Amino acid sequence: MKARVTVTLKNGVLDPQGKAIEGALKSLDIAGVNSVRQGKVFDIEIDAADADAARATLEQACERLLANTVIENYRVELV
Amino acid sequence: MKARVTVTLKNGVLDPQGKAIEGALKSLDIAGVNSVRQGKVFDIEIDAADADAARATLEQACERLLANTVIENYRVELV
Repeated sequence: MKARVTVTLKNGVLDPQGKAIEGALKSLDIAGVNSVRQGKVFDIEIDAADADAARATLEQACERLLANTVIENYRVELV
Repeated sequence: MKARVTVTLKNGVLDPQGKAIEGALKSLDIAGVNSVRQGKVFDIEIDAADADAARATLEQACERLLANTVIENYRVELV
């Protein structure tokens, strides 16, 4: 089973990396970009009895490793 | 206009970060995970005349900054 986990910063959390990218885009004369926020995406292959079991395992992986749930949100999609 | 750019490694390109995450998940007794490949996601707010103009600007941003097109693929989604 294939899944995609997307981890993004919660609203209100400062994103210095995103700010740096904004600045770099401006210096490359790429116009119109107002804001950039960077996150992570994980493409995962997983063996599980069914979709629910896969989702439960992946949520556990997010809670314990893939996301810092204090400042990040995560979303699990089975593809 | 809001857009999401997803940058992932091309097939066949080794992903040491993904391998490290696989190992860490195993050591946390999170079972069933066969492979992990990590990528980047950018949530971007952009001013553009229309969707095509926004897409063109974002593809330029990918080609010049957000993605290393030798080893990475990128996908632009207007949300």
